[in-house]
Amino acid sequence: MTVPPAVEVPRTWALHPDRALPSDPGVRDVAREILRTTQHLPIVSMHGHVDAAMLADDEQFPDPAALLVTPDHYLVRMLVSQATAPGPIRDAGVHTVADLGVGPGAEADPREIWRRFCAGWGAFRATPTRFWLEHVLIDVFEAPAPPSTETADLLFDHLSERLAQPEYRPRALFERFGIEVLATTDPATSSLDAHARLAADGWAGRVIPTFRPDPLLEPARADWASLLPALGESSGVDAGHYDGFLDALRERRRAFVRAGARATDHGHLRPDTTPLADANARRLFDDARRGEIGSAAAAAFTAHMLFQMAEMSAEDGLVMQLHPGVVRDHDRGAAARYGHDIGYDIPIATEFTRALRPALEAFGHHPNFRMVVFTVDETVYSRELAPLAGAYPGLRLGAPWWFLDSPDAMRRFREATTDTAGFRNTSGFVDDTRAFCSIPARHDLSRRADAGYLARLVAEHRLEMDEALDTAADLAYRLARDSYPAPAGAAA
Amino acid sequence: MTVPPAVEVPRTWALHPDRALPSDPGVRDVAREILRTTQHLPIVSMHGHVDAAMLADDEQFPDPAALLVTPDHYLVRMLVSQATAPGPIRDAGVHTVADLGVGPGAEADPREIWRRFCAGWGAFRATPTRFWLEHVLIDVFEAPAPPSTETADLLFDHLSERLAQPEYRPRALFERFGIEVLATTDPATSSLDAHARLAADGWAGRVIPTFRPDPLLEPARADWASLLPALGESSGVDAGHYDGFLDALRERRRAFVRAGARATDHGHLRPDTTPLADANARRLFDDARRGEIGSAAAAAFTAHMLFQMAEMSAEDGLVMQLHPGVVRDHDRGAAARYGHDIGYDIPIATEFTRALRPALEAFGHHPNFRMVVFTVDETVYSRELAPLAGAYPGLRLGAPWWFLDSPDAMRRFREATTDTAGFRNTSGFVDDTRAFCSIPARHDLSRRADAGYLARLVAEHRLEMDEALDTAADLAYRLARDSYPAPAGAAA
Amino acid sequence: MTVPPAVEVPRTWALHPDRALPSDPGVRDVAREILRTTQHLPIVSMHGHVDAAMLADDEQFPDPAALLVTPDHYLVRMLVSQATAPGPIRDAGVHTVADLGVGPGAEADPREIWRRFCAGWGAFRATPTRFWLEHVLIDVFEAPAPPSTETADLLFDHLSERLAQPEYRPRALFERFGIEVLATTDPATSSLDAHARLAADGWAGRVIPTFRPDPLLEPARADWASLLPALGESSGVDAGHYDGFLDALRERRRAFVRAGARATDHGHLRPDTTPLADANARRLFDDARRGEIGSAAAAAFTAHMLFQMAEMSAEDGLVMQLHPGVVRDHDRGAAARYGHDIGYDIPIATEFTRALRPALEAFGHHPNFRMVVFTVDETVYSRELAPLAGAYPGLRLGAPWWFLDSPDAMRRFREATTDTAGFRNTSGFVDDTRAFCSIPARHDLSRRADAGYLARLVAEHRLEMDEALDTAADLAYRLARDSYPAPAGAAA
Repeated sequence: MTVPPAVEVPRTWALHPDRALPSDPGVRDVAREILRTTQHLPIVSMHGHVDAAMLADDEQFPDPAALLVTPDHYLVRMLVSQATAPGPIRDAGVHTVADLGVGPGAEADPREIWRRFCAGWGAFRATPTRFWLEHVLIDVFEAPAPPSTETADLLFDHLSERLAQPEYRPRALFERFGIEVLATTDPATSSLDAHARLAADGWAGRVIPTFRPDPLLEPARADWASLLPALGESSGVDAGHYDGFLDALRERRRAFVRAGARATDHGHLRPDTTPLADANARRLFDDARRGEIGSAAAAAFTAHMLFQMAEMSAEDGLVMQLHPGVVRDHDRGAAARYGHDIGYDIPIATEFTRALRPALEAFGHHPNFRMVVFTVDETVYSRELAPLAGAYPGLRLGAPWWFLDSPDAMRRFREATTDTAGFRNTSGFVDDTRAFCSIPARHDLSRRADAGYLARLVAEHRLEMDEALDTAADLAYRLARDSYPAPAGAAA
Repeated sequence: MTVPPAVEVPRTWALHPDRALPSDPGVRDVAREILRTTQHLPIVSMHGHVDAAMLADDEQFPDPAALLVTPDHYLVRMLVSQATAPGPIRDAGVHTVADLGVGPGAEADPREIWRRFCAGWGAFRATPTRFWLEHVLIDVFEAPAPPSTETADLLFDHLSERLAQPEYRPRALFERFGIEVLATTDPATSSLDAHARLAADGWAGRVIPTFRPDPLLEPARADWASLLPALGESSGVDAGHYDGFLDALRERRRAFVRAGARATDHGHLRPDTTPLADANARRLFDDARRGEIGSAAAAAFTAHMLFQMAEMSAEDGLVMQLHPGVVRDHDRGAAARYGHDIGYDIPIATEFTRALRPALEAFGHHPNFRMVVFTVDETVYSRELAPLAGAYPGLRLGAPWWFLDSPDAMRRFREATTDTAGFRNTSGFVDDTRAFCSIPARHDLSRRADAGYLARLVAEHRLEMDEALDTAADLAYRLARDSYPAPAGAAA
Repeated sequence: MTVPPAVEVPRTWALHPDRALPSDPGVRDVAREILRTTQHLPIVSMHGHVDAAMLADDEQFPDPAALLVTPDHYLVRMLVSQATAPGPIRDAGVHTVADLGVGPGAEADPREIWRRFCAGWGAFRATPTRFWLEHVLIDVFEAPAPPSTETADLLFDHLSERLAQPEYRPRALFERFGIEVLATTDPATSSLDAHARLAADGWAGRVIPTFRPDPLLEPARADWASLLPALGESSGVDAGHYDGFLDALRERRRAFVRAGARATDHGHLRPDTTPLADANARRLFDDARRGEIGSAAAAAFTAHMLFQMAEMSAEDGLVMQLHPGVVRDHDRGAAARYGHDIGYDIPIATEFTRALRPALEAFGHHPNFRMVVFTVDETVYSRELAPLAGAYPGLRLGAPWWFLDSPDAMRRFREATTDTAGFRNTSGFVDDTRAFCSIPARHDLSRRADAGYLARLVAEHRLEMDEALDTAADLAYRLARDSYPAPAGAAA
């Protein structure tokens, strides 16, 4: 017996209008009708990693590989995962992330990087990366054919030609994508210069910063003490002692609010929010300044600081976002050689019920407090997060994040949370991406997944059609906007 | 771009006959056929929280809010979860559970509470609460329209008028609901007076008690020592020392058996069943009497007592029900102000494989022993509980419980457990409710979910239709009855 | 009201061609088309527990019970799980595993065992055991009717008559099943005599051994020290000290490679791979030789040895298989009376992200290293294993294993892993069975589950049909073959 060769079916490369909708014909019809009402709603992107300077500068993107391959850790890791298996990816010369342009001494020829990506296109079958890239290539760039060893150069030239056109500059794409507001993620000590330049260009409120103080809240980091002077300088407050440190953070949060920020973001390993007595916190701060803090004490300090962040959020109205549960740089050798955020971040089981208790007991009913929690441990959806979000008014469930942003995982999210938390205790979709061109694709996929879920509810007579349409608009647009209200006293 | 307003589709308010059945037309036809054979089977409700006194007294229910809103923690928590978000719930004046009638100093006007609930109807979209309430309002009360700000007074008056009729008294509804037997949950020290009155009225065997000794088995409780005299008094055995304590529990179990009980119920945080040496148990008991037991020792004593309960079950034949894994009163401030069981109970990850080992090794093959285990951590279905229930004859898997009693969660339960445990190692549906009027709705939903699951198996040629029909009767009726046999020597 | 009796629908006993395919007609059509291309591909069975001596001897199978009932722990445990419930299984005399022929003093009459199994046929409804047995009985043995109390003797005689025919000898069935290669599992100290006999008969490369050193790597076992002499003897290296122990293992691995082995297999409780300093490992080895090692130290030694196994795999190219997370002999009393592997093995939650880190950091990018990881804790699919396999080229995700080898669990596996790991970071199906006659059934079910999954992707326009067909051949055949390459220098 022999294995049949892959059949080559000729096809025109296009996005199917029903992609990622349910296959049952009755459900699909309803899903189509729902999608029709949400598909063209504006994009409210309240959590992401696009660089504000890119929009402030509004310069031409350099080349297809630098735009679509090298910075996309979803894509890089998948290609590397096939680097030792016989096949097109190894044959194309992919051994490490460096062969895709990542890290010092990396491959410098964008065309070569692009060819390697095209050779590995098959590895993305049925992944969300494939869905997003098809959308980007077809819908944004009108690419004529799917990536392959044969089409690599053709596509590279096609994309390069498009990128040279003014219609493909960042701001033009921003308009074309229908983005109403885009939140970036910015270090606590950021000058927010790019945001100021955007505001000066009349873009106030369209591109907004997000306050992310992670390194400052992790005193076990080798560089922690060295970060304090920058905090002091950026805030104008002496951050060299504990009380000044808190004041400096408060001041930086105010500056972010003035620059239009709606939220903070916190990505520590654990979501523990247990506060310390002030005297203990002061002592740990001083220990850490001397480089004498152990890892358990450092984790306790981080938990204490998350409680402080919750308290400050209740004061200043910045929505507090939590993204815990990921071991960063799982391969420490790769991180040392090539850098961070290159695909070696791996989730762990994460506990929320007890971890969030201190903050929720203290602020969970506060009228000015809002926390949005994300997870890559989907076991907590039905067990912990939906019950918590279905009880505390201050808590909303963040959209499926990172490894869970696929059609099936988004469906599982709704199926596991809606029973207990309903729809309005969820935050609306966030794309969480640094891949600017993929923003419409990601929102499109989310709207399709939600249309499919709602259509099934309608088809099973668990929801009326008018309710489904109203809910679809909630999920696609209103909840993202309403979950991140402008803090009282913010510059409009 | 603007968001389309919600389309108002006019509709007649009725229960769709195909609600919660699969949407695939071929599967639905099979599901309908299966449901037709189970829909009108008697209700065997072997685990719940209806007050026996309500049936013994058989008095008119006070008002719609007291019947349907205030005591339903599913409903109260969901309304409160939206209390700080702009919208109809906040606008209606819901800030805390007190605004829904819960706790001291709470809102006292039933009409006002009812209006708040009606204003928040939209929050329940696609939740099981919505499904149950629709069933109650339409099927039990023939309500003319869905709740809304506009219909609130109309519905309140309609329901009040019905409640005044004799057909809406508890016993009349009990008959109308087709309840064959209803188990209540009763403290270990209960006089079982209401059950005696029911028996005197000819209701022996129709409303039966369940032995729930939780507080007595948790020596870390501040009030633990103060509970012992009542145990002594109710049993006629001195419960002030360890051996008397065990004898008193044995005697109370006998009294429950005489009153018709089929089961015990245990809702501790952990399902650990590790026994202690008698001398250690005696020492911990004495420590606890003096108020000198630590939390670890108290947990060890609770585990020891669960082992004792298992041993007593093997002796007296009461089925041992376990419901672990919930942090009660997550918001301790809310509990202090408003009381318990008001929506702030949140699950945690729960381990069963090792926790149940001592009890199962000792009694898992005993011909007189039966344990039924429930979980709100659905990760254990395929990993721990189905493998255990598929091996030990003494263990059955309880129905999806609490946060898992929705159509999708019930489907996940079957999909995750049937492979390894089959059907006959599950316990049959339990409604676990204190909302008396929702009992038929909950059993109806369970029968629909099971009909849908079985129909898919038939449609996928994994089960013959005759087997599906037989299994459907097992799941809807026979297993609930057979999983809770009358103890040998019980008053039939 | 009375429960309707089970309807007896007359039927011809046959395998439905669409069994276990999706019910949606559009999806089913696609699934059929996919299945048509994989259904008759050769079977590559790279992980299982068939006894090589059975094939070397090629003698007639003894009787239906010894072939199909007694050695199948899936089947035995399910029957025993119903042993105390009123019903046909108890009535047929099943009280313990001994009544099914397991253990010393067990039931010795094969016909009586067979009758008990037939009486319990109903307990397997909707389980994979039922699916496999139907396939075996109908497709392999042309049985005329499903098992029941009435058909038991008829079937026993029918099967006995078939087993007496030369076409039902092991090698004849091997050919008929279309097995291209079958891996057995063999102790590290095995003489591999049966494999040598097979090779002498011209079967080189068709039945290959797998190196399983588990007991040697668990120094807390009471018999551990007594195993070392056999290791020394089989390897010709003094295994009585740590360095000799490692050398002896290396030598045995070489012997397995020479005998055609492709892989090792490791089934410890935890997958921890943290290495020790050599001096510590030596010390623990010596402690263990003296019987003086504690359980924590023993676990640390096992973890250290898994790291050594990974290092040896990078050296000699044997694929390293991990199967952690099962508490063996959960009922220690049953194990003492009846033996191991009789249905009392129960999974626990298992952590992989940190456990595998040392081995993956050290060897995860090594061109000669391949690890295949299996789990019975499905929560790790999306959270840990898919992210790890989607990053490290040295890691592949094993097929759904043991309690997860059913249609629904296989679907959940694809839905939870494909997004992040794609298809080519999975290992291909392994049947993991000691039930020789069920091998085709298990591969058939896997191919059906994958055809259904791929068909849905096609129907949802997430994959093109040509890609689905190509991927289906990967999953059914190529990946199983390619995930277990012949080590460099192996006797091809």
